[in-house]
This record gives sequence, C-alpha cells and structure tokens, in this order.
Amino acid sequence: MADRRNGKGEPTRRTMLAGAFGAALAPVLSVPFAGLLMPTRAAAEAGAAMPMAREVPARLLPVPSTVSPELQAVVGAPLPAGWQDIPADADGWRSLQRLSGAGPHPILAEIRQKLRVDVTADKIGGIPVFISTPRDLPVANRNRLLLHLHGGGYVFFPGEIGAGEGMMMAGYGRFRVVSVDYRMAPDFPFPAGLDDATAVWKALTASNDPKRMAVFGTSAGGGLTLSLMLKANAAGLPLPAAIAPGSPWVDLAGKSDSLATNAFVDNVLVSETGWLGAAAELYAGGQPLDTPLISPIYGDFAGLPPAILTSGTRDLLLSDTIRAHRKLRRAGVEAALQVFEGESHAQFLTPFVPETEEAFTEIAAFFDRHLTV
Amino acid sequence: MADRRNGKGEPTRRTMLAGAFGAALAPVLSVPFAGLLMPTRAAAEAGAAMPMAREVPARLLPVPSTVSPELQAVVGAPLPAGWQDIPADADGWRSLQRLSGAGPHPILAEIRQKLRVDVTADKIGGIPVFISTPRDLPVANRNRLLLHLHGGGYVFFPGEIGAGEGMMMAGYGRFRVVSVDYRMAPDFPFPAGLDDATAVWKALTASNDPKRMAVFGTSAGGGLTLSLMLKANAAGLPLPAAIAPGSPWVDLAGKSDSLATNAFVDNVLVSETGWLGAAAELYAGGQPLDTPLISPIYGDFAGLPPAILTSGTRDLLLSDTIRAHRKLRRAGVEAALQVFEGESHAQFLTPFVPETEEAFTEIAAFFDRHLTV
Repeated sequence: MADRRNGKGEPTRRTMLAGAFGAALAPVLSVPFAGLLMPTRAAAEAGAAMPMAREVPARLLPVPSTVSPELQAVVGAPLPAGWQDIPADADGWRSLQRLSGAGPHPILAEIRQKLRVDVTADKIGGIPVFISTPRDLPVANRNRLLLHLHGGGYVFFPGEIGAGEGMMMAGYGRFRVVSVDYRMAPDFPFPAGLDDATAVWKALTASNDPKRMAVFGTSAGGGLTLSLMLKANAAGLPLPAAIAPGSPWVDLAGKSDSLATNAFVDNVLVSETGWLGAAAELYAGGQPLDTPLISPIYGDFAGLPPAILTSGTRDLLLSDTIRAHRKLRRAGVEAALQVFEGESHAQFLTPFVPETEEAFTEIAAFFDRHLTV
Repeated sequence: MADRRNGKGEPTRRTMLAGAFGAALAPVLSVPFAGLLMPTRAAAEAGAAMPMAREVPARLLPVPSTVSPELQAVVGAPLPAGWQDIPADADGWRSLQRLSGAGPHPILAEIRQKLRVDVTADKIGGIPVFISTPRDLPVANRNRLLLHLHGGGYVFFPGEIGAGEGMMMAGYGRFRVVSVDYRMAPDFPFPAGLDDATAVWKALTASNDPKRMAVFGTSAGGGLTLSLMLKANAAGLPLPAAIAPGSPWVDLAGKSDSLATNAFVDNVLVSETGWLGAAAELYAGGQPLDTPLISPIYGDFAGLPPAILTSGTRDLLLSDTIRAHRKLRRAGVEAALQVFEGESHAQFLTPFVPETEEAFTEIAAFFDRHLTV
C-alpha cells in the first residue's frame, strides 16, 4: 500500500512500529485520536518523518436519509452538465453572464408571493440596487436595514436574479434589504465590484445608523462582505452591527483543504478545476490572488463586527468558511458557525426547503441580537 | 457519464434541459447555488425526478499549507496500519483493550509537566476516577469543577490514558477535572458506562453546585456526554451549566453523511467498515443502535445545557457533530460550533499543536462564560 512506504520504498516508522508489536496491535494504532494521546503523538512523529499526500479511492456517496426529503432531491442531483467547460475568451464569459441574468424569473415571483415581499429597483450612491421590503415589517425592524451582496464568482447573476437571496432574507427575517447590482468581470474586474459595494455602503450609512445595519451575502458575496469590512475598517468608515458571510469565497488563491477533500463531492461547484478557478483569475485581473481585498482571508480581521457563517458538509468552500470563522475568533471577534448536513456549496439558499428556512432564521436571529432597534 | 442518465439509460430532465439550451448554457447550469435561485429550483426538480448516489473518483489529497507545520505532520500521516482489522471474538477485543491502556505513558507525564497539572487516582460514587488539578488554579475556578468522559468507541483506553484529555483541559483551561474510568465493552456493554458516568455525576452534584460545573468528552466521550444529559434531564437530576461534546459519536446506527464523504479522507477512523462499526454493535449488546441513550441524536434535546461542539473538516464524524449542533439549535439550546481545517477525527486533541491549544481555549472560554463563579 502506498501509505505504508515512504517515497524511497522503505518501510515508514509507523509500519516498523506496527511490525514491532505484531498484527494484533494494529487496530489500536488506528484508534489514537479517539481520546488517546500517546499514539496520537506517535502518529505525529511518523507524519513528521514523512507528511504526504493521501490517496483516496473512488467511492459511491448515497443520498443521506438525515436531511429533509425536499433537500434529498437537491443533494442527490447529478453533477451539473458542463461544469468543467470554461469560456475561451471574454466574449464567452459575457455570453454566459447574460444567460445567468436573463429572465423571466418565475422563482423570484414565487419567493415574493409566498414570503410576502415587495421589490423595487432603484439607485443608491449611483449604483443600481433592488430593495426588498417585507409586507409585514415588524416594529423592531422599522429602523433596521440590511445590505446584500450576491454570489456568482464575481461574473454571474447581474440584475434582479442576484437579488433573490435578499428577497429570501426579507421574507424569512422580515428585514428591509438592499441588494447591490455591482459591476462584474470580465469587463469590470477587481476592484470595481468592491467600489460599488463601498459606494452603496457610504450612501446608506449617511442616512442610517450603522448600529441598526448588517451586511450579508453568499459565495463571492460572502467574500465581498468581508472585503468590504476590511476596506471600511482600514478607511475609518462606519462598520455594521453584524455580518453574515455564507460559504464565503475568501481564498481565491485556492489553498483551502476542502478544494481537495470535497472535489466531486460538491454537486454545485464540483471542482476548482471548473469555472471557479478561472473566475478567480478573471476577477483578479492580474493582481495577486492573495491580495487581502480580493481574498480577505489574507487580511487583518481585528475589529470586524460580530459574524455568523454558514456552510455545508459537502461544500467545496467548507474550508474557506471555517478558516474565516477561526480567523475571526483568533482576532477576538464574536463569530458563530452553522454547517448543514449533506449540503454542497450555497445549497442553504435552495428555496422552500426546511433547512433553508432554518439557516435564514438563525441568521435573522443573530442580526436581531446584535442590531440596535 | 453515469450522472447524465437515469437508471433506465434515458436522458434525465437535467440533460434534456441542458440540451434544449445548447452547450453554451451548460456552465451557467453549474453555477446555480452560488447565489442563483432559479436553476437551484431546476436542479431540485431534476433531483426530485431522480435523486441518486454520486460516484466520486479516486483522488490525491495534498497536505494543506493552511494548518500549522506541527499539524501538517498529523494531517499528512498515513492511514494507521491495520485500521480495518476487527477482532474475531471477545478475547480479541479484550486483548486490544488491554494494549490500548498499557503503560508507561510518557506523553501523559509530558502533558502534566508542560501544562503544570497534578493528577491523582481516586474513587467517586464507587467508580474509579482521575482528578486533574492545575498548579495555578485561578480564583474564579476554585469552586468550579468539570466532569470528563473519555473516547475510544466504548472499548478502548481504560485507566490513566483515558484521562489525558482531562489533563489537557486542566492545563489549558485551568479547571479542576474529574475523568471517569467507566466500564466498557465487551465485558460491560451499554448501559454500564452510562451508569458509571451517572453515578459519578450524582456523587459530585451532591457536594458541588451544578451551576459551577460542566461535562465534556470526545468521540464516544462526546456521545456519552449527551447521553448523560438525556438521562439526567429525563430523571430530573441536576444539569451542568455547559457541556462540550467533541466530535461526538451520536449516531451509532451509521446514518451520518460524513461516514461516506470522509471515508478514507479521515486518517484516524478511516471508515466505518473498520473497527468503529464493529464497536457500535459490541457496545449496544443487542439493543437497537438507534436507542437514544446509545445514539443520543435520536433523543429529545429540549432543555439541555448550553453546548460547544468541535470537529474537523476531514472528520469521519463531522456529520455526527453538526447534526447534534443543529438539533440543539432547533431545540432552542444555545450551541456553538468550531471546525478545524484539515483535521480528522478528534485530532484537536493532538498534544502541543497550536490548533489544540486554540480548541481548548475556546471551550474553556465557553465554560467561563456559562459557569457561575
């Protein structure tokens, strides 16, 4: 077995250890971390002698019975056709971008109707936005306002479709929500989207109390939420009372372990070798991918607002999410984490699934605890 | 491709949809959950027509650069030799159990010395225990006391080695800790271990204020922590002010999705087809595996104390952990979650690794917030 020998074909220290004690000891050597300490150390020492990549065999993932029947349909959906097709040039990206935003959008009408939300298009700070207002706005939320930044790899979902997550938050959380239709690659790479988000944030905080505000978004929108916080913090702009980055794309340099462990397990993004990695380069536009305002995991999180982060066990960006959570905690920021069983990237946004209402309800409760009335 | 056709070899609705719009649309269809809503719904409908198991190809997992060098040695360690060897009979289990507890344990001496902890053996409520006391006991912790339940699949780590996690908590958190050397399978299956834990809990709460107490443990010890809470809650016994189940083994019936997704990704437990699944049967001793006091995920979590749960992205029991977290939250219990990058089962217990100190520090801070001084 490959894991029993080092690169030179010699027995590893671990193999020798097992050999020395005989086959009967082998299962105990497999137990170490389950509460044992000494073998843990032995494993660390064996690893220190030769930390190495691990071969994982092909496997079949059943549809889990541990999620709602509605979500089982989503978890059990096949890989999206053509996930690995990357546009050859800017025109190819533009054409996909247009398709990703092209209406009509019956699902948006269904969300507005079922969750009782009204939506209007407007401009704030010169930037196009969609404003979602719940028909039953609770008294406590009359002076509160959320800023929403949509996902789509900084390329997809221009126009109203990008505001869908904002409409769901307005419906489930009964907050007023401003969704930013920010400029995107290929025509407007970094920092255009961040500039647009900043312009709206500045305009909104000029006439609203930031202590009554929160910022949220998923995937690229979660990364952009954190980038906006880094920029505002460094520039001395007001910060909101809370943020909610969902499956945030915080490391466009692709260092997260879940890009390997959840590759082909995630049935949304599938693998960074698909369009995601290409979109990172497109958005960065020649800037280093580990630039903190592009990949906020490389920034300074000290002083950021309380945060709630959301992911799924099959999410290709699970590591992006939990790395951001840990870095916030290490910086002394109050930060909550919720991870949903069996969900691939951003599947907590799937409309009309029980787990989605649960995710939004948690985020709304977090906002309610942190925002001044 | 298997994911493009249903069981009858017919094109799926998804394939037909992609076909109808042409190949150029395919990558957009892969984007849906990244903030988009309409294709999400389309995917759900396609899945509803045919939710199915997913084939995951063989892969190579690099050692992540996103963890400390000390932890890289642990993450990059090969699969433990003989992880899949299951004892043929009770004598085989007994022999492994003895080996798992056999000293000397130089790592325990190192923990006591470096973390400045004194340990004594004693009996409480008639049950053997190890009491860990930090040499510098903070004034705030003088009247506080933690109960520790060790891991090891309800079979392994009798004696002092099982108290190692308790010594680390005493050292990192500077709390007094009582570690229970409870009876285990094969000679003492369920409910012997739970009975022993209950006896110690009753004896301790007779002379200590439960509001100044917490209960914690990892793996089987995390499951046992929750089982003890279910039993105490149902019996009207006092409950502690907080609990900390780490990578808790809450579903011995094996329904968790991560048993599939992290099989052969986790380099500690490796796969439920190894000793873990056999230990579940051994511990249950003929009782149904979904008995709530055996698999607490099937119990009623209403009224349980505030909890902090810990896991790793490669943990075979990641889903056990996050399912318990979500169930606690749905029951209205305050519950925090922390997940560590690249860590397999219970690797947050690896001594003298920065991430371990981080994990213990979080748990200790959670206890400090919830326990009466």
